[in-house]
Amino acid sequence: MSSAVAQIKPTHWYDLDVPEDRLMTPDEFSDAMQQIGRERYHSLHPFHKMLHGGELNHGQIQAWALNRYYYQASIPRKDLTLMARLRTPDMRLAWRSRVLDHDGVEVETGGISRYLQLIDRLGLDRDYVTSTEGLLPGTRFAVDAYVNFVAERPELEMVASSLTELFAPTIHKERIAGLSEHYDWADDYALAYFKKRLGEAPKDAEFGRDYVIREAHTREKQEAVLNAIRFKTDVLWAQLDALHYAYVEPGLIPPGAFVPDDRKD
Amino acid sequence: MSSAVAQIKPTHWYDLDVPEDRLMTPDEFSDAMQQIGRERYHSLHPFHKMLHGGELNHGQIQAWALNRYYYQASIPRKDLTLMARLRTPDMRLAWRSRVLDHDGVEVETGGISRYLQLIDRLGLDRDYVTSTEGLLPGTRFAVDAYVNFVAERPELEMVASSLTELFAPTIHKERIAGLSEHYDWADDYALAYFKKRLGEAPKDAEFGRDYVIREAHTREKQEAVLNAIRFKTDVLWAQLDALHYAYVEPGLIPPGAFVPDDRKD
Repeated sequence: MSSAVAQIKPTHWYDLDVPEDRLMTPDEFSDAMQQIGRERYHSLHPFHKMLHGGELNHGQIQAWALNRYYYQASIPRKDLTLMARLRTPDMRLAWRSRVLDHDGVEVETGGISRYLQLIDRLGLDRDYVTSTEGLLPGTRFAVDAYVNFVAERPELEMVASSLTELFAPTIHKERIAGLSEHYDWADDYALAYFKKRLGEAPKDAEFGRDYVIREAHTREKQEAVLNAIRFKTDVLWAQLDALHYAYVEPGLIPPGAFVPDDRKD
Repeated sequence: MSSAVAQIKPTHWYDLDVPEDRLMTPDEFSDAMQQIGRERYHSLHPFHKMLHGGELNHGQIQAWALNRYYYQASIPRKDLTLMARLRTPDMRLAWRSRVLDHDGVEVETGGISRYLQLIDRLGLDRDYVTSTEGLLPGTRFAVDAYVNFVAERPELEMVASSLTELFAPTIHKERIAGLSEHYDWADDYALAYFKKRLGEAPKDAEFGRDYVIREAHTREKQEAVLNAIRFKTDVLWAQLDALHYAYVEPGLIPPGAFVPDDRKD
């Protein structure tokens, strides 16, 4: 087992001191959500530690950015799938800003456009990246699972699945600091997406948290909310598993996936 | 990079000498299908080589059997999703035997029931395995992607996605021989599922191949068939990536997934 891995000991299921048979108070419920972040959020993954710690080479960072593109570009599809199932105009309106944030009022002012600046800066071809031809199958399956989740689950759970945003500001701050410190390419142009998200994610997360606290009337529904957040941490974690496996250790790139220049022979 | 990995060099896209602008003959089309198997089938994956070569410890084999269960148990859901979209009774009838093979005429005579004999023999708890609580998220996402594929794609492609069965007899034979040779638990009771499949898979594969050869009238449709087979090889490959990553190298078990006894502390 590598030293990168030895640092992290996976914990299994959160364990709070709330009896199993009663509704959690709003504070207990919020704590339970935060606890999931502390135990399962992908900021704990060794691949993230390597990325933010300057331990990845250029080809590995390209692989990360290329694969993460598919997640990024699928978020508005996810949000529109979700919005199409919301039953009241006020809920749909509240969700609308997410689509505007990512797709833009004009395309070039949206988050996906800002994300593509990172692709440029890393010397990747935009057309190749947006074709998703070199995507890891593990990335595609995880991201598509997220879109399918919001297409199929009850409204409470589909809204809850976005609540990993509660944990996002920390990782975005770490990412901006870590990348800026360790990599020459990491300037304002390359990191524009992440810098902008710092201002967007908290309002989205707050809205979602208020909603699930208000709507989860029974302990069973509260647990369904927590399971939806766990599902989402799995979606994020599995993407880093696939990257770490293919490009770091053992470094076996699946047939058809992106091969960095230094791995070509 | 480990020695297990150094043995396999991933190839990227098959390359046959057929001009791009004409229909392939049935023989060329069949060759193109077989070529995908030679380049992308999961029999090439280092985890399979370790499994069949007797190099896995008991906990690693338990993890394989537990995760493979979800694939196994999802196949009838996949086949019924597909059958529900077939437009003629003769096609639905032709497909029916697959469901009978797996679910049984009576449950206890079906493939899933035989598969659970392997679970018993490996000392795993049936209820824990069938709950899928300890499943790797990567397994769930890959298998669900297969079910979703047949729910969404045109009839030709959804049928084509089963054609990895063309490559299955070899791996089933290798598996039975390899497991019997190397592991004490691998008796007739444990391997009943795989032994039975040796007789079932070829007839299914032949039906599917004849169908796609008959129905793919244009080169574009032939390429869509090949892409559907590639998609399916990705589904199988990604499951072994997730197993290898979590339980062999680097050996990082995702939060919530099955922990073998020898990894508990």
